[in-house]
Amino acid sequence: MNESAEVRRHAIRPTRAENFPEWYQQVIRAADLAELSSVRGCMIIKPNGYAIWERIRDILDGMIKETGHRNAYFPLLIPKSHFEREAIHVEGFAKECAVVTHSQLAKGPDGTLIPISPLEEPLVVRPTSEMVIGEAFARWIQSYRDLPLLINQWANVVRWEMRPRLFLRTAEFLWQEGHTAHESAEEAQAETLCMLELYRQFAEKYLCLPVLCGKKTTSERFPGAEETYAIEAMMQDGKALQAATSHFLGQNFAHACAIKFAGRNGQEAFAWTSSWGSSTRLIGGLIMAHGDDDGIILPPDLAPVQVAVLPLIRGDGDGEVLDYAKKLRKALLVADPALRVEVDGRPLRGGEKFWQRVKGGTPLIVELGRRELEESTVSYLRRDGKEKMAMPFDVFVSSASDLLRDFGKALYERQLALRRSRTVSAKSKEELREFFADGGGFAEAYFCGDRDLEKQIGTELSISTRCIPLDRESEVGPCIADPSQKGPLTIFAKAY
Amino acid sequence: MNESAEVRRHAIRPTRAENFPEWYQQVIRAADLAELSSVRGCMIIKPNGYAIWERIRDILDGMIKETGHRNAYFPLLIPKSHFEREAIHVEGFAKECAVVTHSQLAKGPDGTLIPISPLEEPLVVRPTSEMVIGEAFARWIQSYRDLPLLINQWANVVRWEMRPRLFLRTAEFLWQEGHTAHESAEEAQAETLCMLELYRQFAEKYLCLPVLCGKKTTSERFPGAEETYAIEAMMQDGKALQAATSHFLGQNFAHACAIKFAGRNGQEAFAWTSSWGSSTRLIGGLIMAHGDDDGIILPPDLAPVQVAVLPLIRGDGDGEVLDYAKKLRKALLVADPALRVEVDGRPLRGGEKFWQRVKGGTPLIVELGRRELEESTVSYLRRDGKEKMAMPFDVFVSSASDLLRDFGKALYERQLALRRSRTVSAKSKEELREFFADGGGFAEAYFCGDRDLEKQIGTELSISTRCIPLDRESEVGPCIADPSQKGPLTIFAKAY
Repeated sequence: MNESAEVRRHAIRPTRAENFPEWYQQVIRAADLAELSSVRGCMIIKPNGYAIWERIRDILDGMIKETGHRNAYFPLLIPKSHFEREAIHVEGFAKECAVVTHSQLAKGPDGTLIPISPLEEPLVVRPTSEMVIGEAFARWIQSYRDLPLLINQWANVVRWEMRPRLFLRTAEFLWQEGHTAHESAEEAQAETLCMLELYRQFAEKYLCLPVLCGKKTTSERFPGAEETYAIEAMMQDGKALQAATSHFLGQNFAHACAIKFAGRNGQEAFAWTSSWGSSTRLIGGLIMAHGDDDGIILPPDLAPVQVAVLPLIRGDGDGEVLDYAKKLRKALLVADPALRVEVDGRPLRGGEKFWQRVKGGTPLIVELGRRELEESTVSYLRRDGKEKMAMPFDVFVSSASDLLRDFGKALYERQLALRRSRTVSAKSKEELREFFADGGGFAEAYFCGDRDLEKQIGTELSISTRCIPLDRESEVGPCIADPSQKGPLTIFAKAY
Repeated sequence: MNESAEVRRHAIRPTRAENFPEWYQQVIRAADLAELSSVRGCMIIKPNGYAIWERIRDILDGMIKETGHRNAYFPLLIPKSHFEREAIHVEGFAKECAVVTHSQLAKGPDGTLIPISPLEEPLVVRPTSEMVIGEAFARWIQSYRDLPLLINQWANVVRWEMRPRLFLRTAEFLWQEGHTAHESAEEAQAETLCMLELYRQFAEKYLCLPVLCGKKTTSERFPGAEETYAIEAMMQDGKALQAATSHFLGQNFAHACAIKFAGRNGQEAFAWTSSWGSSTRLIGGLIMAHGDDDGIILPPDLAPVQVAVLPLIRGDGDGEVLDYAKKLRKALLVADPALRVEVDGRPLRGGEKFWQRVKGGTPLIVELGRRELEESTVSYLRRDGKEKMAMPFDVFVSSASDLLRDFGKALYERQLALRRSRTVSAKSKEELREFFADGGGFAEAYFCGDRDLEKQIGTELSISTRCIPLDRESEVGPCIADPSQKGPLTIFAKAY
C-alpha cells in the first residue's frame, strides 16, 4: 500500500504545483482524451474524450428538450454578404474565420493541386450561427402565433486560434448553440436567464462544478448582444473558466436578418432574440477543476464507466476470479440497471490495469483477487481517495450507487471550498495587484464598467472582469478604478 | 367518413403517379422536414426532419458500438497536401470540394469584406475522412497489438452538388463514417462485410426497407477502394437508392498515410483498412419507399411520435375529453414505457390536427371525442390504412405495441412485394431497353463488368449497374453486352 501510495504521487509529471499548464497537457495524454492534429489548431477527440462528450451532450440535450426547445441543423457555410449584415457581430468574428473561396482543386503546372473555380461569393465556415439561423427565422416567422421559436443545434464551428490548447481553445470545436425568437423584450430576457439557470444546474449537478451566474461588462459582451450572461467556474490554479454563455440579443439580429412578425395588434414588429451555447471546452474545465496529480477525475454522471472491475489474473484459478468479477457486474446491474460497469478481463498486470483506470478518472476502481473471492469481499478505490477500501460483496453491491452519489457531492464540495478559500474582496487597485501577484483567484470589487478603465486594469494586471454576479447585483459601491464613480460588485480574475 | 376519404386522396399534389419528383418535394414540405437554404445546395434540416435523424443516429450508433466500434471526432479541414496523397481518391473528390484559402475577412475599398491572410496551404472541407483519419491511425498504430482499430465518426461533410435535392443530394450532409485498420486482408474484408450486414439489418428492421446486399462493379467503386459493397433499395418509382456503402480499401490508404505496424513476426507491415458510411439520405429513402399521396409514412421505430392522441375539442365538456386523452397516454405508457405518445391538446379544429399528423407520417393517429369518452373506446387510423378503426379502450392499450409492430411488418412486406413485382430478368440489351422504356425497376442480367461497355449501356439507357447480389454471386452467364464474355448476375436500374 505504501509503495503504491508513493507511486500515486507521481502518476502525472509535472504535478499541478510544479507546472499547471503542462500538468493539464499530461493529464489529457495519460487519459488518452485528445491530441492536436496536423491541421493547425484543430484537435482530434479520441474515443476516451469523445465518450465524455457524448455523456455531456446526452444529458444537456435532454435538459434543453425538456424546456421546450427542438433540435435542427443549419448550413456550415455562411455567404459573406449575409455574414456582414450585423456590423458589431462581423467585427467580432472577421479576424478569425475560415473563408471558402473555391469549389474545385485541379493539377497545376508542377503536378500539385491548386484551387480553381472561384466562388461568386466567398463563404465563411460558421464561427457561430446567428446569421444563418436568423435568415431561416425570418422565413419561418410570420405572425405572433409562430412565437416563441425555440431552436437548438449541435454542431462544429471554426474560429481561427493562434494559441490553441486542447479542449480550451481550438480552431474547430463542437458545441450546442440555442437560438430563440420572442414577441417581447421581456420574454427574450426571461429565456436568456432561463438558459443561464439551466447551464448552472447542469454544471453544478453533472459537472460537480460550482459556478457564479453573472452578467458580463459591456466590453466582454458577445459581438452584437445587448447583454451577455455567463457561468464562471474557478479552476485549481485560481483562474476562471467561462463554462457557458447566454445572450440577450435585443432586436439587433432581428433587424440584421429581417425577423419580423405581425403582432397581436396587427402591426408588424421585429422579434426579440436570444442565443446561448456551451462546448467541448467543458471537458477542459472538468480536468482543471477536479483532476489531481494522478490524472483526470470524472464526475459520476459523466463517467462513461462508473465502476471498473479489474480481476487480478495471475495464473491458476484465473477463471474463478474472472467469474467473480462478472458476478459482481451482474449484481451491480440488478441493484441499479442504470450503472455503467465494465469488467476489464485483459491479461495485463494488475498494476497496469489499475493505473490506467486511475489516470482515466473512473470513479470507482474495484480490484478482485483470490483473497476477495475467498472472503467474498470487494476491494476498491474511490478515485478521489488515497486508500483502497474493502467491503463485503453484498454491502458493496447495495451501496455502489450511494458511493457514486457521495463521490459527486465530495467533488462539488471540494470545488466550492477551493473557490471560497481563493475569493477575496478588494478595496483598491493595490489590493488587486497584490492578490494576483500572490497566486490570485476571484477578486470581488466595485467597478463602474468603463471600457477604458477595464482595459487598463486588464493590461496592467493580466486579469479581466468575469461577471457581475446576479445574486448580488444590488451591491453597489465606489469604483475600484475611479472612486468618483459608483459600480456594481464585479468579479476579476485571470481567465482561460 | 366518405368525405374524409375523398380528401385523403388529395393531401399531396401532385400525386406519385402524376409527378414523382415533385410529389417528393411536396411531401417534405407538408411534413415540414427540411428546406434549401440561401447557401447553394445546402439544406436546413428542420425540427421534424432532425427528430427522424436523431432516431436513425441513436439506433445505428447503438448497433455500431455493440459491434465493438468507438466514436471519435476528427478535423473538418484537411490540408491539401494530405488530401492528394492517394491519387485515385483525390481524383474522385477534387472536382466537388470546398477549399478554404484565407483566415480573415477585412473591409475592402468599397466597404464590403474581402478575404485576407491567405493560408500557406489551402485546406479542403472534408468530403470524407479517409485521409485525415488515416494520418491519425498512422500515429496510433505501432504494433499488431494495436489492431484491429475500430473507429466511427458522426460528422458533417461537404461535396459540391450541382443539382441538389433535399436529403438525396446536398452540398453538405450529415453522416456516420466508420474507419477501421486490421492485421490482415481477411480481417479487413470480414469487417467490410460485417458492416454491410449491419446496414442490411438496420435497413430491414428499422427502416422497414428490404435491400439487396451486393458488390459494386469496378467503375462504381469508391475512389481508392479495392471493393465497394452497398445495400440497394427500390423506391416506389422503380429507381434504386444506394442506402449505405462499405469499402474494402486494401492497403491503398495504408500506403498513402503510412499506416504501418510491427507484425507478430517482428516484420513491419502495412495495415489493411475499411471504411463504411450512411447519411441523411436515408430520410429521402424513407420518404420515397413508404410515402403515399397523403405524405410521409414513418416506420414505427423511427417515428419521433408513434401514437398521436388528438382530443376533439369543441366547447362544453372539452376538459373531460382532454382528460380522457391524457388517461390514454398514461395507460399506454404503463403498458409499454418505451412507447412515444403525444397528446395534442391545441385548440385547433380536429381536421387540422388530424391532417397534420397524416402528413407528418405518425404511425397511429388516435381521435378522441365525446362519443369515444362515453363508450370508453378509441378511434384510430393506422397511417398505412384507409379507414379509421375503433376499439375498446383497454384493448387498444394492450395492443398498441402489437399494432405498431404489425404496421412495421406491413411496410416491409409492401416494399418487398413492390420490388418483386418490378424486378425482371433481361437476356438482351433489347429487353433491358424495353423494360426501362416501360417504367422499369430492377433488371437482373449477366454482365462482364467491362468499364467501357458499362458506360455505353449507362449512357444509352440512362441506367447504371447497382450491384452484384452477394447471395447470387455464383450465378454466371453470357454477358448481356458482349455474349462472348461471361459475367456474374448484376442488377441494373435507374438510380438516385
